[in-house]
Amino acid sequence: MSEIVKIVEVGPLSGLHHEQQKLTAEQKVQLIRYLKNAGLQTIEAGAFAPAHVMLNLADSSYVVEGLSLFSEGLTLPVLVPNLQGYENAMAAGAEAVTIHLSATETFAQKHLNCSIEESLGRFLPVVEKAVANHIPVRARIACVAGCPYEGTVLSSQVVNLAEKLHKMGVGEISLEDTIGVANPAQIKRLLFDVTSSVPLSKIALHMHDTYGQGMANIYGGLEFGVRTFDSSIAGIGGCGFAKGAAGNVATEDLVYLLDGLGYASGVDLESLVRVSHYVADLLEINPRSKTAHVL
Amino acid sequence: MSEIVKIVEVGPLSGLHHEQQKLTAEQKVQLIRYLKNAGLQTIEAGAFAPAHVMLNLADSSYVVEGLSLFSEGLTLPVLVPNLQGYENAMAAGAEAVTIHLSATETFAQKHLNCSIEESLGRFLPVVEKAVANHIPVRARIACVAGCPYEGTVLSSQVVNLAEKLHKMGVGEISLEDTIGVANPAQIKRLLFDVTSSVPLSKIALHMHDTYGQGMANIYGGLEFGVRTFDSSIAGIGGCGFAKGAAGNVATEDLVYLLDGLGYASGVDLESLVRVSHYVADLLEINPRSKTAHVL
Repeated sequence: MSEIVKIVEVGPLSGLHHEQQKLTAEQKVQLIRYLKNAGLQTIEAGAFAPAHVMLNLADSSYVVEGLSLFSEGLTLPVLVPNLQGYENAMAAGAEAVTIHLSATETFAQKHLNCSIEESLGRFLPVVEKAVANHIPVRARIACVAGCPYEGTVLSSQVVNLAEKLHKMGVGEISLEDTIGVANPAQIKRLLFDVTSSVPLSKIALHMHDTYGQGMANIYGGLEFGVRTFDSSIAGIGGCGFAKGAAGNVATEDLVYLLDGLGYASGVDLESLVRVSHYVADLLEINPRSKTAHVL
Repeated sequence: MSEIVKIVEVGPLSGLHHEQQKLTAEQKVQLIRYLKNAGLQTIEAGAFAPAHVMLNLADSSYVVEGLSLFSEGLTLPVLVPNLQGYENAMAAGAEAVTIHLSATETFAQKHLNCSIEESLGRFLPVVEKAVANHIPVRARIACVAGCPYEGTVLSSQVVNLAEKLHKMGVGEISLEDTIGVANPAQIKRLLFDVTSSVPLSKIALHMHDTYGQGMANIYGGLEFGVRTFDSSIAGIGGCGFAKGAAGNVATEDLVYLLDGLGYASGVDLESLVRVSHYVADLLEINPRSKTAHVL
């Protein structure tokens, strides 16, 4: 039997957030339905954050309600920035949440509007409540390899934060190379250091393709033993830090790799490529996946 | 001291060959000069093949003559399809040659107009002469992982051909994933099999990015111990088998990986990105390198 790799589809959340063309709540629900039909089982679905430009509160409530119609067998984490967001998400029917932190102070200040320590304080009651109510929490740590403001990031900065999140009760910690500067050797060193205090089974990788290294970094992660990877349908989302630059690794290219290596992701590549073209058409872009251009 | 990795720049030959916009011989000479200034030391420079649409005989002679003005320290293999091409290349002043074969019969028949056995017969006198005259010969074997006509390719098909070429006296054998279907595990198995009869130091990898796997495959090759890689400035060349699909791995993205991993390629990434934009402008395309979009 093939070994299982879990894909966390982030297109409907982080992907759409960075695209110029906006989708309606109905279109988002439809997109998630198609992604599910292609075999994806974990999809970051929306955000309960007033400041989150694209997915405002009302919209995400609508998405979560729409999703309840077919969400059997799906895990649909929604981004919550604080306890209020968590309560709103729960009120709307969400059953899993994502929290977002940063490994560097400057990125935290500029993008999360607080210090790293403050964000931990802010998320502590969220995680405590979630754990008490059996709501899975995943944490994404931005800038694990490099920061647009501070440059190279030491793994000690990540280790410290990951350990605290793990002790809080966070179930999955996604290491995000937000600006795509990592190389596979760096990723392996980081994983080596982080897994000194967090079990490997709780670690996910969220690789960006800014310099074309996303797939090599994922392969490095697979070699190390990581079995959970974030990716974005059609590579949507781009890069928030350099116009025209690539962002998230495309889910199609990731599935192509996993199929080739013999891992079971549960995703059907041909169906997925159809979803890629569907969302690219809605957004009036070309799919940023190489695979989608061939199949 | 850093370990050295050799990059064989194939843009001026295979890259330009597949681009719609054609460059003049002078522009090609200028391009190669810029590539040299960025630190590249081995550049496939042209073809002495009447059938090679873009680089006809007269044009390649001009290129080789032009190059003689600044080729000190450069190795500039030119593609020769047979003994006549070899003689013409030598008459024009070429000092290194490339020959092209296929691991599958159908690809050989359709693209090299002969059987695999016939191509070996055709190249035997070329390699003999070259060896006698101390002219380095590199062989590129197409379709080492998959064939557009025959599907999956067994490594035994490649091993057999590589061994014969090695015994003939070919100095470098470049394993070409012409349609970009390989994954890193497959590349490692292929390398394991091929190096049973050919020293690893004589093996190069020529990876295409058709399904976004090029950089992961190169990383797999590096892990196995390969230290020579083909790539194309700005990723020019595209894919001859699917319109709009990606072709050669971009030299910029390869250099980014090698820099990150601490290998010495001798190439300056920033200079290289300038060359990437230069050639993309001439060809009226966007660089297909991710790195070139950021730097």
